This record gives sequence, C-alpha cells and structure tokens, in this order.
Amino acid sequence: MQTLYRFQTADHIVAGRNSLQRVGEHLHLIGADVHKALILTQPSIQSLGFVDTLVGQLADKGVQADVSTSILPEPTIGNIEQVFAAMEGAAYDLVIGFGGGSVLDSAKILSVLSTNDSSVRDLLGTDLVKKPGLPTILIPTTSGTGAEVTPNAIVTLPEEELKIGIVSRYMLPKLVFLDPMLTLGLPKPITAATGMDAFTHSLESFISNKANPISDMFALESIRLISSSIVEAYRNGASVEAREKMLLGSMYGGMALTAAGTAAVHALAYPLGGKFKIAHGVANSMLLPHVMEFNMDAIADRLQQAAEPMGINTQGLTSSQAASKVVERIVEWTRLLEIPQDLRSFGVKLEDVPEMAVSASKVTRLLNNNPKELSLQDMEAIYRKLLS
Amino acid sequence: MQTLYRFQTADHIVAGRNSLQRVGEHLHLIGADVHKALILTQPSIQSLGFVDTLVGQLADKGVQADVSTSILPEPTIGNIEQVFAAMEGAAYDLVIGFGGGSVLDSAKILSVLSTNDSSVRDLLGTDLVKKPGLPTILIPTTSGTGAEVTPNAIVTLPEEELKIGIVSRYMLPKLVFLDPMLTLGLPKPITAATGMDAFTHSLESFISNKANPISDMFALESIRLISSSIVEAYRNGASVEAREKMLLGSMYGGMALTAAGTAAVHALAYPLGGKFKIAHGVANSMLLPHVMEFNMDAIADRLQQAAEPMGINTQGLTSSQAASKVVERIVEWTRLLEIPQDLRSFGVKLEDVPEMAVSASKVTRLLNNNPKELSLQDMEAIYRKLLS
Repeated sequence: MQTLYRFQTADHIVAGRNSLQRVGEHLHLIGADVHKALILTQPSIQSLGFVDTLVGQLADKGVQADVSTSILPEPTIGNIEQVFAAMEGAAYDLVIGFGGGSVLDSAKILSVLSTNDSSVRDLLGTDLVKKPGLPTILIPTTSGTGAEVTPNAIVTLPEEELKIGIVSRYMLPKLVFLDPMLTLGLPKPITAATGMDAFTHSLESFISNKANPISDMFALESIRLISSSIVEAYRNGASVEAREKMLLGSMYGGMALTAAGTAAVHALAYPLGGKFKIAHGVANSMLLPHVMEFNMDAIADRLQQAAEPMGINTQGLTSSQAASKVVERIVEWTRLLEIPQDLRSFGVKLEDVPEMAVSASKVTRLLNNNPKELSLQDMEAIYRKLLS
Repeated sequence: MQTLYRFQTADHIVAGRNSLQRVGEHLHLIGADVHKALILTQPSIQSLGFVDTLVGQLADKGVQADVSTSILPEPTIGNIEQVFAAMEGAAYDLVIGFGGGSVLDSAKILSVLSTNDSSVRDLLGTDLVKKPGLPTILIPTTSGTGAEVTPNAIVTLPEEELKIGIVSRYMLPKLVFLDPMLTLGLPKPITAATGMDAFTHSLESFISNKANPISDMFALESIRLISSSIVEAYRNGASVEAREKMLLGSMYGGMALTAAGTAAVHALAYPLGGKFKIAHGVANSMLLPHVMEFNMDAIADRLQQAAEPMGINTQGLTSSQAASKVVERIVEWTRLLEIPQDLRSFGVKLEDVPEMAVSASKVTRLLNNNPKELSLQDMEAIYRKLLS
C-alpha cells in the first residue's frame, strides 16, 4: 500500500441516460470559447445517428464541427500523424473523441500535438508533454478502457511490433459524457472483451503495489458494478440498467488505474497487441485468470477483499480459499462471455513465446506495480498456458 | 434519484501521511509559473511550525510567500474584503488556503476576487463568478467541511444576520494536500463538531433528491470511513489511522455534496450561524438527528442502506427498524462526542424560533434537495426540540 498517493481526473463528468442530448447545455463547462471542433468517431457510431445529434447541438451553440472516421482500431503512430496532418490549417479549438478507447486515446494525442511542437514519438513515455493541449470532450461508446478519465494513450509502433503509452496529465479531458444508451447496440464480443478489460483495470489496480485508499475505493466499486452486470450486459445487451453499471464501472476502473496503475496482465498484453494485433480487451481477458493464478500467494488477502463486491459468499473460507473462488469466478465469466482461450487462433505459435516474454519484460512501468516479480520463464509459462 | 448527474473536483489531490513535506515536488501540477503566494492560515497552524515547513518548500522552488492570519472563523464579507484590500499591489499569482473550512473558503473567494471585477456581494449565489481565479492550493487541517474539493464558499452577512454561499466551478482548487498528521492536535470539541459536520455532508447527500450513483459512492465510502473512526479520533486524537480515515471521509463528503447537494440540516443551520454565531459544524451536529427523524418516513430505505457501512447489523430488521438504528447511532455519537444539545447555551430563546424558521425557509437551494418538504411549522418544531 502506497503511503503517498494522488488523484486526478476529468474536469467535469456529466452522466446519465440520454446525456448525449445534453452536450449543448454543458458546453460552457469547457471554460473557453470554442468555434470549431474536430469530432473523431467511428462509422458504427455515425450510422446510429449519434454523431448527428452531437453536431446539431454544437451548431446550435455556434460551434462548427468536422467529422473524421480516419482513426483505425488500435491506431499506429502513422495513422495518428496522418489525421494530424489533415487537421492543419483548419484552426480547430476543440477536439471531441466519440467512440471506443482507440478513438478517445487518439483525441487526447491530437489535442496535445496541436499545441506542442512535438511528434508522436517525442511524447512516448511519461510526462513528456510540455504544454496543455486543445480542450477535449470525450464520450465513450464502450464500457472498457476508461480512457475518458485517464491521462494515458496507447499507440502501436508497427515497425517495432510494439504498443507504447503516452502518459500526461495534459491529456485529461475538460468534459466527459457518460451515456449508457450509446452502448446498447454493442456487439456481444465487444461487450465481453471491453467489459473484461474494465474489470482487469480494477482488479489490477486493487492488487497493484501502488494501491492506496483512493484507488481502492474506485477499484472496489468498479468490481462491484461490473460483477453485477457483465453477464447480463452480454446476454441482454438492451438492458439499460446493466449497461449503465458497466459504463460507470468502466469509468471507475479508469480512475483506479490512474491512481494506482495496472500491472503484469497489461504488460503481458502489450506484445499480443503489438505483434499479433489482438485487441487490447481480448488480450487482457485471456491473460487475467492466469496472471492472477501466478500472483495468488502474494495477493490472497486482496482477492479475498474483492470477493464480497463480486457477490461471492466467503463465510467460513480462508483467505486463499476465497481468493481461489475469485479466480474461479473470472474463469467462469471467460467461459460465459466466450472469451477466446487459445492464442493459436490469432496466429501465435509456441516458438513466438520467448520473444513475446522479452518484449513484455520491457514494460517495466507496469511490471513494477505487480505484487510478484516475473522472470522471463514465468512470463513464458503464462503465455504457454494459452497455447496448450 | 437524479437521472442526469455531474461530477467535478480539484485538479490534483495528493494524499498521505506527511504529504505536507511534499508540496514542493508537486508544485508543477499547478500548471502555471508562480512566483508569489499568499498563504492564508490560522495562528494555531502557524504555532505548530507547519507554515514554516510550507514556506521553506515554496522558497526552494523560487516562490516568495506572505503569510496572513487575518481571516477570522466564519468570516464576514467585511473581513474578506479587508484581506482582499491588503492584497492589492502585491501581485500574488497563487493563493494557498491552509486551515479549517473558513480559511479554505476564504482562499477560494480571494482567488476569484483577484481576477473578477466584482465585490463579494456580486458573487453571492450560484455561477455568478465570470472568470477563473488565481490558482489555489488548499490544505485542510480539520476533517470537516470538505471545502478543499467543493465549489462552494460560505460567508456571513452580519447586517442581515445571514450566512450565504457562493457557488462556482472556478473556485475548485488546482492542488489539494491531505495530510492526516496536520489534524493530530485538533482539540476534542473541534474534532467532534467538524467530524459530525463531515458525516452530515455525506448522509444528507445520500438522502438528497439529487443523489445519484456517483454521489452515492462517495457518500457511502465517507459514511463507512467516518463511522469507523469518529469516536476513536475524538477519544484518541493521536491515532494517525483514525485521523487519516476522518480526513479522507471528510473529503469524500465534500465530493458527495458537490455532486448531490446537502439538504434541510444545512438550511436550518444557516440562521444558527448567521444570527447566533454557532459554528457551522456544531449547528449541523445538533440538527442532524432531529432532521433525520423528521425525514424518516421518506428515507427509511436510504437509511437502511447507510446502516451497513455504519457497522450496524441489520439482519432481520425491516427498513424502518434499520433506519431507526441509524438515527439511534447518530444520537449515541452526539452523546459520546459531547456535542452541545441545547440552543439556549448559545443565547437562542423560544421567541427567536419563528424568525429562525423564516430565515431558514429562504435557503431554497438546499431545501429543494430535501426528500420531504418542510413547512414553517415543521422547522419551528425542529428548532424547539433543541430548546426543550
């Protein structure tokens, strides 16, 4: 448990069913005059009419908006730089990210690229952004990354087959809208992978070496909300109640990880994304039970504390028995949510494992948060469990 | 339960034991160059050497600091304007509030007075501050108001015998330090009154008509932390663990009330402060059980939910039985913490009651949050219980 701890988040969060319809009336919370916005979004969001709803409200407030769907899933540096080049001369004074984690992260990066004389590569790492960016509004459409409240953004370096993070407090948004109605149409596999990703953020923050009273509160509330709704959101995607719990749970997961950091699951997931293009949420979901199994002897007490908010009855159980039940529940979800279990289906071969472990071992920023040290052999063993 | 809800807080919160020693290294989080700070504080804080610790760290970072102890408890408009007049020409670019709620509130007001061409009277009300103020750092030394994370500040209007709030998002600070070591020496009566004030913030936010999932999380965590530590902090003020729980619980209370608002307890407390100079925390503590009693039939379900985090075993109880236990627990604390019970000791007479009720009935901003409407007769009856 950390003795000195910090909390930071988005400036303003507006939440609730149909809060997308209320963007206009809250625009003043940005605290600056805005005239021209770039909306980054995805074709799927556009086709549902949500983008028109947003553009109309902006127009009513005198804000002209251009819409771009050029950000690709798990974007590369090249993709982001291409979109940035297209922004030039347009004099945007607001960037809106309206989509999943990739879109939100890209909005954050484009915001700081616009005001800092830096390339994306210059910013890779922690606290390398020198100046505040353009104001941003982030509107998540998945319940997964919590990117709307984190100072992090992940990019892919295709040449190095790596994913790397940019971490800067200047990437926290001015304004967030959390509208569960936007997530009702999420396809099942995305509900499953992003939902488990959110759960991973919270559970890893809770067992992180940097866990602290503030991150614990968000982590446990996130664990409680997600545990009570993830299977329902998957089975009955139209359940507004389940979707709202997932969206809040995902945001709290983002708050928890901002305060405490994620750990080995995320470190091991990076090579799966970088080299094999496995979506971030899927990679985390596959790794979660195996990494928790590995950590078990060091975190039984913490997992026991997570059991109750997960709805697990732990009466009469020792801490390690309760911890086992937590891992069992995660494995059960993996089955119920039909999370892929075999890395082979993504083209990973046994002979790739040593290189993946070397690559993961470089993510020291996250491995340092893990309650147990992982040797290369430990990492290889975890990867091999997903190839057996 | 509100369907659209909002969350906003301080930009950065740094917490933990001895975090006061770490102000210097976090100064960059203000996000602006600062050269000259005004530190508002209290003689009691100064005499403990804490102010020197702060001034030294600022000097090391090239920030010159002036120290003022001119803000009085429950300050009047005149008091604040006097301190503001003394600031003129000094070119401060940072205001630090280092003390109890009165000092923190005053720091927020002086910050916005410095940049807005307004008098204090111009700003009384909600959202009347036009521009961001000077950056502020708030360092609470009581576990009570949660003022370090609220956009509110309360001032006394002596002519009108009233206390009125200024509410503006521009009064949220850039940086908060939460150091429980600063609260170890708090005298017993202040520990009691401020602690019960913090509890009142959380319980009133939880039963507020504007309660929502975000405010509920903070309210319940605050209720849990305060319930488990308030008696210990009172009896054994040197308990760092109890003091740390109280300080976090008080901050969460501030977050809860920012998101959901307080209600009738606070409305009824205003005349007690305005006319009879009863400290805010004392007035809230006296009123809390009686107002909850009045609200009871409308909030039994909510009080039942508060019982568990208060450590009350509710197995086999109906919701109204559980709710009664919550009120009993509050009454028990009032006794254990030796909270004054008789308004007469503050010079209130029975014949003052009608006027007090009229005065309270004007605080519609808070009365609107109360789950039950209060007639003048209802308010009079509550005041009379404290005069019997």
